[in-house]
Amino acid sequence: TDLFLTETFSKYFMKSGAKATGFTVLGDRNELADMDFVISVGGDGTLLDTVSLVGEYEVPIVGINTGRMGFLATIAKEDVEKAVQVLFDGDFTIQDRILIHLEADQKLFNGVPYGLNEFTIHKRDTSSMIIVHTYIDGEYLNSYWADGLIVATPTGSTGYSLSCGGPLISPSAKNFVITPVSPHNLNVRPMIVSEESEITFSIEGRSKKFLISLDSRSTAVDASVKLKVKREKFVARLVKFHDYSFFDTLRKKLNWGFDMRN
Amino acid sequence: TDLFLTETFSKYFMKSGAKATGFTVLGDRNELADMDFVISVGGDGTLLDTVSLVGEYEVPIVGINTGRMGFLATIAKEDVEKAVQVLFDGDFTIQDRILIHLEADQKLFNGVPYGLNEFTIHKRDTSSMIIVHTYIDGEYLNSYWADGLIVATPTGSTGYSLSCGGPLISPSAKNFVITPVSPHNLNVRPMIVSEESEITFSIEGRSKKFLISLDSRSTAVDASVKLKVKREKFVARLVKFHDYSFFDTLRKKLNWGFDMRN
Amino acid sequence: TDLFLTETFSKYFMKSGAKATGFTVLGDRNELADMDFVISVGGDGTLLDTVSLVGEYEVPIVGINTGRMGFLATIAKEDVEKAVQVLFDGDFTIQDRILIHLEADQKLFNGVPYGLNEFTIHKRDTSSMIIVHTYIDGEYLNSYWADGLIVATPTGSTGYSLSCGGPLISPSAKNFVITPVSPHNLNVRPMIVSEESEITFSIEGRSKKFLISLDSRSTAVDASVKLKVKREKFVARLVKFHDYSFFDTLRKKLNWGFDMRN
Amino acid sequence: TDLFLTETFSKYFMKSGAKATGFTVLGDRNELADMDFVISVGGDGTLLDTVSLVGEYEVPIVGINTGRMGFLATIAKEDVEKAVQVLFDGDFTIQDRILIHLEADQKLFNGVPYGLNEFTIHKRDTSSMIIVHTYIDGEYLNSYWADGLIVATPTGSTGYSLSCGGPLISPSAKNFVITPVSPHNLNVRPMIVSEESEITFSIEGRSKKFLISLDSRSTAVDASVKLKVKREKFVARLVKFHDYSFFDTLRKKLNWGFDMRN
Repeated sequence: TDLFLTETFSKYFMKSGAKATGFTVLGDRNELADMDFVISVGGDGTLLDTVSLVGEYEVPIVGINTGRMGFLATIAKEDVEKAVQVLFDGDFTIQDRILIHLEADQKLFNGVPYGLNEFTIHKRDTSSMIIVHTYIDGEYLNSYWADGLIVATPTGSTGYSLSCGGPLISPSAKNFVITPVSPHNLNVRPMIVSEESEITFSIEGRSKKFLISLDSRSTAVDASVKLKVKREKFVARLVKFHDYSFFDTLRKKLNWGFDMRN
Repeated sequence: TDLFLTETFSKYFMKSGAKATGFTVLGDRNELADMDFVISVGGDGTLLDTVSLVGEYEVPIVGINTGRMGFLATIAKEDVEKAVQVLFDGDFTIQDRILIHLEADQKLFNGVPYGLNEFTIHKRDTSSMIIVHTYIDGEYLNSYWADGLIVATPTGSTGYSLSCGGPLISPSAKNFVITPVSPHNLNVRPMIVSEESEITFSIEGRSKKFLISLDSRSTAVDASVKLKVKREKFVARLVKFHDYSFFDTLRKKLNWGFDMRN
Repeated sequence: TDLFLTETFSKYFMKSGAKATGFTVLGDRNELADMDFVISVGGDGTLLDTVSLVGEYEVPIVGINTGRMGFLATIAKEDVEKAVQVLFDGDFTIQDRILIHLEADQKLFNGVPYGLNEFTIHKRDTSSMIIVHTYIDGEYLNSYWADGLIVATPTGSTGYSLSCGGPLISPSAKNFVITPVSPHNLNVRPMIVSEESEITFSIEGRSKKFLISLDSRSTAVDASVKLKVKREKFVARLVKFHDYSFFDTLRKKLNWGFDMRN
Repeated sequence: TDLFLTETFSKYFMKSGAKATGFTVLGDRNELADMDFVISVGGDGTLLDTVSLVGEYEVPIVGINTGRMGFLATIAKEDVEKAVQVLFDGDFTIQDRILIHLEADQKLFNGVPYGLNEFTIHKRDTSSMIIVHTYIDGEYLNSYWADGLIVATPTGSTGYSLSCGGPLISPSAKNFVITPVSPHNLNVRPMIVSEESEITFSIEGRSKKFLISLDSRSTAVDASVKLKVKREKFVARLVKFHDYSFFDTLRKKLNWGFDMRN
């Protein structure tokens, strides 16, 4: 068993005065091809970065959280030792999570044009709302007058989409959800579409620029850009221990367990 | 080409003084086995009844609306002649819509234990809210403190579930949505699960009886009843003309076209 | 200082084997005229009953909760001794809470036609939705197509109205909120009106009967009934200790304190 | 009767080739002191600007809309002649609308620190959400984890607050509504407080700067700024014709009149 550390992590590790040896610093992403697992240590945000690193290599990811339990980083740091044993024993399953892929007529997001949680379009700071003309598989869906629009994966359904009124989506449901941000038309509702859908957008607004993002990475683009999102060809593969339950996590993190109002 | 009328319809037809001949009154549901189409004349409510009649025979259904355009009865009565031509020409596609099947430990709903739109559990009139313990494929999801709980199909997502804050679901997305009715816990959100899920319930409440329904049919049951819903083995097959667009219907019926507030 | 017990309470008290003496059983409601305080022991539901008992006598009410902290019954049973001292010392303020008064063209609710939380109109069990034509001070507001309609006081804003999407209202804001229950028209929103408003209703529906309620008391009425709600002439006067904060209670009971999702 | 035009309007007017005479160009805001009416020609946005111009002079404002009917600019341009007659006849009432006043420890908004619709705090473009610690009359209310926070007047309740889930407020209800924008904590709800409240804020966030706005004017400020909003000492006085109904406007602009879904 060989242990690799990312360059950033190894520097941070050494600086902390730790005297560990016996690991290699990860040089090229090609080296991922031979790995059995990638271990993400941090929170859900760190795991999103890990997904960007792993990408098409589809190495199974083990999420260890150093703070509070996450939706993705589900293993408490207290349980790391046990977790290593579980990995050696092979006593786990792997859950595939779809990614959302962005196709544009210009290079964006440094060649990492996908996210695990969501793609968003948003008006800029001081500008008024934007109009997002939206098409599903070439068929016109709607023109959203809103501050923005989110297309979230099932994984992303517990994130920004949820704050904007979107539903929860079980990881086993094969969908995207299109959720408008502060829509002006009060009739508009979040819309569930098949994960096989291709969703295209054209944007209108008083401002020439608007913002787009994939997970936590965002960039400003011109209104003339052509944007399409669809399912990424590869997936993120999350290691799931047998005592893990997505619904348990939901109940805990959303405080469903106990109704204080009663 | 033979024309059959349901008994109810033929009586109504004769009473109206119409002097048509050349049709047969439908005797036994077995006769459905040989039919090419069933034509539903009325509104969306009538089409729900038609689905109950057709059931496992899966005869393609043509929905003609005599009033306003429906989500299901999409052919205007003015276009009936054209529609007949389209049927003869075979110039249409057939869209399969899943049904929701109810399994209980007692006979309910007169041997028609399925619906096209939704299954609901609801508190009775004057009783206080109920607690619905809910499990997905045997795994505990949540205990909903609410006036009721809805499990809707994609077709039903534009109905009662929508009034209760549920998302819209494209007919091509293969899901159910679980939507609570006036939930007491403010954190609770509609939840999308795969159409392959089996959802089981146990109910608690001060009242001994509560209500369950499939589409517009409802009945009172004891809290001791065991209830499970899942996808029905057969589907409803809706005839869809080539100029029909679900998204167009959505935009028109939900007034998306035009934002009056601006 | 004289101590009175309601007949129900005193019976319950004696049956429990308590050997207390020195109290009088409350005979007639007139006796309330001379009381300094009424002490409500139970939960928020008990306090609603106490308000019905006290009514126009406006005796200040002290709410002791025997279970979890309530929005109304705010004194923990552990603090009863301290609370008695506070009452003797006069070290409290009194907070007036408006009541909602129902006026109908028939006698309803046994001569107690007011509530502290809310007035509701609701469809009956198995019937389809109702249409509630609503007028503010004689001016037409809207026709709600819904399962029901709530008019809540600020006090009631944390109850059923909140479950149906209504806003929270600070006790010092002088309003009612009109909140529809599962409205069919997706554009409809809760509406805040002045506490000086008179709100009248006429109801339409397939069913001849529908339900109305004041707090937890409900009754079936004919669609022909004329209904009007407005502020009650008298108020409920709640004793508030100096360390009590409505906002604290809100944060605790609605779990605002801590965002688990982050 | 003397007619004054603002400098901007008169330039625009002359440039259009109109050959009108008999008007004076408004020089100093002091001249507003003697005016009987200010006539705002445009839409609701123009009327917001007019309110900024008129300010403490409280001159009654007549709102003429050149496009679609507004919530504020309620007189159609076709009815201008009739409107002038109505003004001369004195056949109208005046409706006072409260303004929201911003107090800060630095000069902001060019000495026009009030708005008719709302005050907002918002995160900047690419930053993550902010935390807004909020106090009502010095008492701690809540710490909102959100994209932003709105404090709207009754007039502003039909604007941005409504898009973010806030309730409608009748002009006669004397309140502000505090509405979070995409709040992270799912339990948080819009909150109605008395118009007599003073609301103070302190802001936390990863970014050093955030945005604040009054109606459509916005500016970036440091997180160290001290912010307080309360009712402005003066009001906006809107001329209201007798056939005008706020509820009519609501129904029309929010499409309440007709339920297409049925």
